Amino acid sequence: MPNSNWLLPEYIQDMLPDEAWRIERMRAVVLDLLRRSGYQLVVPPLLEYVESLLIGGSHDMDLRTFKLVDQLSGRTLALRADITPQVARIDAHLLNRPGITRLCYAGSVLHTQPSGLMRTREPLQIGAELYGHGGLESDMEVQCLMLQSLASLGISGVHLDLGHVALFRALAKRGGIGSALEAELFETLQSKDIYALGALVNGLRPEVKNALLELPRLYGGTEVIARARAVLPDYPEVAAALDDLERAAAHLQPLARSIGIDLAELRGYHYHSGMVFAAYHPGSHDAIALGGRYDDVGRSFGRARPATGFSMDLRQLHGLLEPQAQPKGVLAPHRDDPALQEKIARLRAEGDIVAVDLLGDPSLRGELGCDRELVLRDGAWVVAELKS
Amino acid sequence: MPNSNWLLPEYIQDMLPDEAWRIERMRAVVLDLLRRSGYQLVVPPLLEYVESLLIGGSHDMDLRTFKLVDQLSGRTLALRADITPQVARIDAHLLNRPGITRLCYAGSVLHTQPSGLMRTREPLQIGAELYGHGGLESDMEVQCLMLQSLASLGISGVHLDLGHVALFRALAKRGGIGSALEAELFETLQSKDIYALGALVNGLRPEVKNALLELPRLYGGTEVIARARAVLPDYPEVAAALDDLERAAAHLQPLARSIGIDLAELRGYHYHSGMVFAAYHPGSHDAIALGGRYDDVGRSFGRARPATGFSMDLRQLHGLLEPQAQPKGVLAPHRDDPALQEKIARLRAEGDIVAVDLLGDPSLRGELGCDRELVLRDGAWVVAELKS
Repeated sequence: MPNSNWLLPEYIQDMLPDEAWRIERMRAVVLDLLRRSGYQLVVPPLLEYVESLLIGGSHDMDLRTFKLVDQLSGRTLALRADITPQVARIDAHLLNRPGITRLCYAGSVLHTQPSGLMRTREPLQIGAELYGHGGLESDMEVQCLMLQSLASLGISGVHLDLGHVALFRALAKRGGIGSALEAELFETLQSKDIYALGALVNGLRPEVKNALLELPRLYGGTEVIARARAVLPDYPEVAAALDDLERAAAHLQPLARSIGIDLAELRGYHYHSGMVFAAYHPGSHDAIALGGRYDDVGRSFGRARPATGFSMDLRQLHGLLEPQAQPKGVLAPHRDDPALQEKIARLRAEGDIVAVDLLGDPSLRGELGCDRELVLRDGAWVVAELKS
Repeated sequence: MPNSNWLLPEYIQDMLPDEAWRIERMRAVVLDLLRRSGYQLVVPPLLEYVESLLIGGSHDMDLRTFKLVDQLSGRTLALRADITPQVARIDAHLLNRPGITRLCYAGSVLHTQPSGLMRTREPLQIGAELYGHGGLESDMEVQCLMLQSLASLGISGVHLDLGHVALFRALAKRGGIGSALEAELFETLQSKDIYALGALVNGLRPEVKNALLELPRLYGGTEVIARARAVLPDYPEVAAALDDLERAAAHLQPLARSIGIDLAELRGYHYHSGMVFAAYHPGSHDAIALGGRYDDVGRSFGRARPATGFSMDLRQLHGLLEPQAQPKGVLAPHRDDPALQEKIARLRAEGDIVAVDLLGDPSLRGELGCDRELVLRDGAWVVAELKS
């Protein structure tokens, strides 16, 4: 009976052995780096009540989130499309510490639509968050950690883009811009639509209007910071943000191939409030890791705390690496011989892969992924090259 | 503004740091054991089309499976409630090897209802499957692997229960029992409801009727096998199943505290076809690991293959272990000193946890999980005991 039960939904894929082991190792490498850097692992659930996951009221996030009904409560549940808000909930409510909390996580998230043609709807998100510190030091700590995480995976030649949401927020506040117009301006700046921007800023007072029109042009290398000082109004918030960008760029220089500044970059996540950053690699059109400051997210859970963090998708990162096959194993014949069983156990204890050839069919043993075999020589089981 | 956004749905929990790290290590230990035993890792997706996940037509599984709508196709998707059918799909369709395939997996599954008052709706399922071999050797391989996996986690004193679905299937076939009555008998045997069973078997021919009435009494130690030989009809399928149970029990004896036989145990999963097994521990009312043979599952994906495997829930197993806190770290002051940065990097490279004290507030540093600190002595940064 022919059927198509084996078909997967679009943008949903299995990980087969070579990829699965590689990603498992990548996960272990990054989590170990984060652990040694003082970050504690948390594992929030795959589903929660929809209100807990859709904090910040992002329409984009709402559309990307799968909803379903909880038979136990009758309420609407959502599958997480992002882990950051869950970790903020844990910091705000469960751990409830007054000082600094460093947390990390690794887990799948699900999206109703892929974020790009080459992307999966089930990214494997890994990341770290630092709560309880509002200064530049914590921004730089997580930025370093993101670049170190990429380096630990063998991903080099990374370009780092820095931005600062406080610049736009300061202009909106000083210009007396209402929340509806602010949202429109935000979208327009993200899409870098200069013509639409021109129409939106028309009624604003000149220094704010001119500054908003300048923002999309303020991208490039670190020289952009000096240009911004010249063309943006000298509000103290603007000066402070530019100082922070300058210090962070100098601090991160040794860890990146190049550093760019993009002052119209406000990130798709609506919850960011301060410095934002994204890593790029020649192998990917999209950012390969990103993060930023989001000091207000905890408020949704009853406790606003300064916060900054980064995240990346291990499946996307895996695509940047050269393919690598798993190590090969040792084929063992299937025989009820205590000396053979002991030898197999010893090899496995030493870290070798040993696969027992239960069928004993020479034409099929190629599938068992072995390049050596156990043979009996002079009464002892020894490892020999596998003749194919 | 008070709110309850931090509330989680019933039977859904976060894993906080001590549990999360412990379970992460448990996962690594078991996956490494499986890898060294020749099992290749696969990672199937969290959601698939509902028809792919609900193979075998189990009503119980259908009720336990969350459904949602795919916005891309308009079709119904389901969140996996079990990983075994997904791995069977990968064996049957994607890998499509004629010989033996050994696969393992670790991942979350989701249930609409908890399987017990103490259970989560989001178990972390880990397990292994062996395809392409129908003989007792593969049953015993996965049974050993299950017991070795438990031992690798430090779980000892395990009782192993063995059963054999082929006994019931042989009786149903020889008795000419239709599928509706077979399903009713199956449910009744699972619940060991002797009175309901008596009514159901009333019209059957004496040797089948008597055998079905005996099944619920055929449980206990390995002496049950001899009793079964005496009271069950001497069909060749029955004799073969009892021989297999006897050999498996003898083989597994060294790995378990005790071995039991339960001939009415047919497992909740409707897809089993041969020997089934479950591990029990004094710390849990439910089985802590279980598995069995399910030779027909691949048929739903166009390719029936002999198959046997086991699975367990790492969150349930974690509950059996003595609590264990994470290792403590080294507190480092926040200072822009290259010698300090170098010392921190070296300690981390050696595997130590080093947390930077960004706030520098002695009353808050207790939260950073450290029992040592970096201090400057005679011009060098050294690790000293942390005075609390």
